[in-house]
Amino acid sequence: MSDIEIARAAKKRPIQEIGAKLNIPLDDLLPFGHDKAKVSEGFIKGLQGKKDGHLILVTAINPTPAGEGKTTTTVGLGDGLNAIGKKAAICIREASLGPCFGMKGGAAGGGYAQVVPMEDMNLHFTGDFHAITSAHNLLAAMLDNHIYWGNDCEIDIRRVAFRRVMDMNDRALREIVCNLGGVANGFPREAGFDITVASEVMAILCLATDLEDLERRLGNIIVGYRRDRSPVYCRDIKADGAMTVLLQQAMQPNLVQTLENNPAFVHGGPFANIAHGCNSVIATTTALKLADYVVTEAGFGADLGAEKFFDIKCRKAGLKPEAVVLVATVRAMKMNGGVKKDGLGEENVEAVKAGCANLGRHIQNIKKFGVPAVVAINHFVTDTEAEVQAVKDYVASMGSEAILCQHWAKGSAGTEELAHKVVEIIEGGSAQFAPIYPDEMPLFQKIETVAKEIYRADEVIADKKIRDQLRQWEEAGYGNLPVCMAKTQYSFSTDPNLRGAPTGHSVPVREVRLSAGAGFIVAICGEIMTMPGLPRVPSAEAIRLNEAGEIEGLF
Amino acid sequence: MSDIEIARAAKKRPIQEIGAKLNIPLDDLLPFGHDKAKVSEGFIKGLQGKKDGHLILVTAINPTPAGEGKTTTTVGLGDGLNAIGKKAAICIREASLGPCFGMKGGAAGGGYAQVVPMEDMNLHFTGDFHAITSAHNLLAAMLDNHIYWGNDCEIDIRRVAFRRVMDMNDRALREIVCNLGGVANGFPREAGFDITVASEVMAILCLATDLEDLERRLGNIIVGYRRDRSPVYCRDIKADGAMTVLLQQAMQPNLVQTLENNPAFVHGGPFANIAHGCNSVIATTTALKLADYVVTEAGFGADLGAEKFFDIKCRKAGLKPEAVVLVATVRAMKMNGGVKKDGLGEENVEAVKAGCANLGRHIQNIKKFGVPAVVAINHFVTDTEAEVQAVKDYVASMGSEAILCQHWAKGSAGTEELAHKVVEIIEGGSAQFAPIYPDEMPLFQKIETVAKEIYRADEVIADKKIRDQLRQWEEAGYGNLPVCMAKTQYSFSTDPNLRGAPTGHSVPVREVRLSAGAGFIVAICGEIMTMPGLPRVPSAEAIRLNEAGEIEGLF
Repeated sequence: MSDIEIARAAKKRPIQEIGAKLNIPLDDLLPFGHDKAKVSEGFIKGLQGKKDGHLILVTAINPTPAGEGKTTTTVGLGDGLNAIGKKAAICIREASLGPCFGMKGGAAGGGYAQVVPMEDMNLHFTGDFHAITSAHNLLAAMLDNHIYWGNDCEIDIRRVAFRRVMDMNDRALREIVCNLGGVANGFPREAGFDITVASEVMAILCLATDLEDLERRLGNIIVGYRRDRSPVYCRDIKADGAMTVLLQQAMQPNLVQTLENNPAFVHGGPFANIAHGCNSVIATTTALKLADYVVTEAGFGADLGAEKFFDIKCRKAGLKPEAVVLVATVRAMKMNGGVKKDGLGEENVEAVKAGCANLGRHIQNIKKFGVPAVVAINHFVTDTEAEVQAVKDYVASMGSEAILCQHWAKGSAGTEELAHKVVEIIEGGSAQFAPIYPDEMPLFQKIETVAKEIYRADEVIADKKIRDQLRQWEEAGYGNLPVCMAKTQYSFSTDPNLRGAPTGHSVPVREVRLSAGAGFIVAICGEIMTMPGLPRVPSAEAIRLNEAGEIEGLF
Repeated sequence: MSDIEIARAAKKRPIQEIGAKLNIPLDDLLPFGHDKAKVSEGFIKGLQGKKDGHLILVTAINPTPAGEGKTTTTVGLGDGLNAIGKKAAICIREASLGPCFGMKGGAAGGGYAQVVPMEDMNLHFTGDFHAITSAHNLLAAMLDNHIYWGNDCEIDIRRVAFRRVMDMNDRALREIVCNLGGVANGFPREAGFDITVASEVMAILCLATDLEDLERRLGNIIVGYRRDRSPVYCRDIKADGAMTVLLQQAMQPNLVQTLENNPAFVHGGPFANIAHGCNSVIATTTALKLADYVVTEAGFGADLGAEKFFDIKCRKAGLKPEAVVLVATVRAMKMNGGVKKDGLGEENVEAVKAGCANLGRHIQNIKKFGVPAVVAINHFVTDTEAEVQAVKDYVASMGSEAILCQHWAKGSAGTEELAHKVVEIIEGGSAQFAPIYPDEMPLFQKIETVAKEIYRADEVIADKKIRDQLRQWEEAGYGNLPVCMAKTQYSFSTDPNLRGAPTGHSVPVREVRLSAGAGFIVAICGEIMTMPGLPRVPSAEAIRLNEAGEIEGLF
């Protein structure tokens, strides 16, 4: 059966029953249909002071076209923990609507480790991303309107720093000239659109602890600069209040269920590139109050996703992760070992061994954050016993353990061993989480620390202009912010073709950006595309309702 | 108490109870929170063959800055009908999000004749408009993508006829140049954004009878022309299927309640200018299967709104309205009689009498459609008895009846007399509805018919180019479509300052547009703004959450 067939055959329980598993009262679950709900703000406030459950991060090796299954393993481990009698919940990210119409693919897991309702999750869901789009574009409209009516803030229209967003792959909007058509339409200037997940408003929603914090952060967004280079903030344009109103409902975490009817919080989904790529802080902290074990994921491979999870999300939200599950597949090991995609079906133990270097480095890196790690081998039907054993042996040689998981085929029955291991690690109490650099370290040194400690680069290359910019921000009081690295996800280095565990490379920082509302400095180390395009044959062409009213072609 | 204070004090019932009043089973109500729900597609399909209730249209005199209260009266009459023991539902339009951040004002009625939850209705509601924005912009993105990847349809990029939309007042986007930035970003061309309610996709959603009809109409949208002027359709770009998927949920009517806990369908809201400005066909036809009396409204004054309701919505959906309520206020009569806004507080019977000519012509016009009309005088506290009597006497002299309504202050108790009168009219069985022109009349003659019969113009002025265009469309098979007049709402003429009942004027047609998906020809008689701008001090500046978490400044 395909993923979508499995999802359609799911025996979903009413969402109120799922909420009851976490002791959420009926009135505090705001239903969206019969299978989705938001958890009320008031209920979440009332949880303060309660003891936190244990936090587990699922991350992965550097992604390859072979696929790793980070979300699938997050779902599988959550179900596995429930199956062995633990009260567990998962926290994953919402899917972006626009890209679903470009390439096929969803974001709800796969096989027998899925979250449902899958169709809704890949379409409008509970409207969070639409609310973010509205709030973002309201600020943009108010900004141009401010300039139109006299520009009291004296914004230099060449230095407007806030673009518009749309949840769509639309290359035509990457670069535009707006305000054309004469006096009534404003002052012509260069502008552009990003995809909604790349919005700073999205990153803010995912880091805010409550509505007050949200409003404060929104007010801090820098929308442009004056001729003297001094910043103009969102609050100068007086948009922060209305944006908060637009986001009030979106700030409430969404509750859905796994195929095994276990609770899943699906909330947030900031771009894992120019933002931090994690489930929202409010969803994760809420889940920790309601469940004894909370499994969450981070974007891309561990060098990008786990690092940002630790150094940005956990640091800022005061989270203490106690275990890491590092997802690897035999197929991805083979690709890291030099095998092409069409050769993955054949047994090749030597290639597996060669590719393990990538996995090994991630294991070492995670230890640097003081969190014990276990490797989950996400099983694929073509994997041979010898190949699996090769991975296990390698991981053992690194002082860790690899466990074969078959959640894709078997659901929780395929992850019980992993679940037991994770519980054992947590009960062992060996975790001593700490970010890899302190708040007070100078900004450039923070970038160097990540590049050298995590990417294993020899050096960071940056123009004087970039170093000066970082120093200026330090003087302006932003020196204590963490850095959000923007780099290719395919390699430890900045060269996407350099698989395995490269050394001796250097990390060029092309540009730095201040996300004053989200609260980080983005260091751009390579090309960053913030508005994707559609392919020659977009998957949208095949998406339609069939005669049964079911959605075809979306997955 | 202010409208918002009254709304917050409402004793809302769970939406399931409201649905039960219309015999909608629990499973067929898809809840959005505890006070909103969508009615399932399957349930609606199952209603076919059931007897229809009676349809009542609420329309008004030409709007003035004094306000008339069309939605308020629709709500009041619905409650009044329920109060006198009839099973009644109302069908009104959804509010557009963007404009709420420009000028103050909502679209949920007022005083004790409101629909709740008011805040949600003025914000994201159930996401219908966001879905329309997504579907519209998906087509726009696929269109530019089609051109980018080789332009197999040979679209002339100077003749792209499909803009993008955003639910925001954003003048900066009215006219843009897009696809800038080099080869990877496409072919630069002029483009622009309209507000979402002006989207043809919105008009289509509001006229479609079911999902199949929706998909067919979406496919018919003309997105551009080739150099030989032949049209390229949405279905040539293969976007119709995915757009239908995006709109699947939005096609389900939304159920909410009045302050008196009576059912209200709030669905659709096409621009009353370049579209027809009515509640969706699917909501109205569904309500007619579930209630014995259905009260609905149309945009602007009766010359625009009622005419389009009759000639477009009723014609196309086969609806048979049996009574019309024409809303007037003493204050608006005074303004039509020449009084300025700051003089409205003083008694001025002569001005009321002078202004009644506007009302009288609307009464005559409605009779031309074969539907009996009653006038509702929406009472305002400063109205004097003599002024009210002057309106009543005038209406009586026109062979109709005017009834004083006090729903704003008293709810249903203020409209019982009106409700009895409406029932009496319907039971009298005198209605013989017919559109004012037949399908087979040539297009230009249709425009002339409306201009002469309804606007009482002497003539229609149009260039040869426009007449040729209409003939070309007739040859292409579009001759049987109705015309959708786009004209100022403030006057019977095309001059917004010409109040009262002008004669001897001419109607210049500046432009004609083919909405092949929606199924009408738009005749533009004056300036049409399809993307509003924000005022100098947008209401958004004062919108924020107060300490109780309530929304301030939105209303």
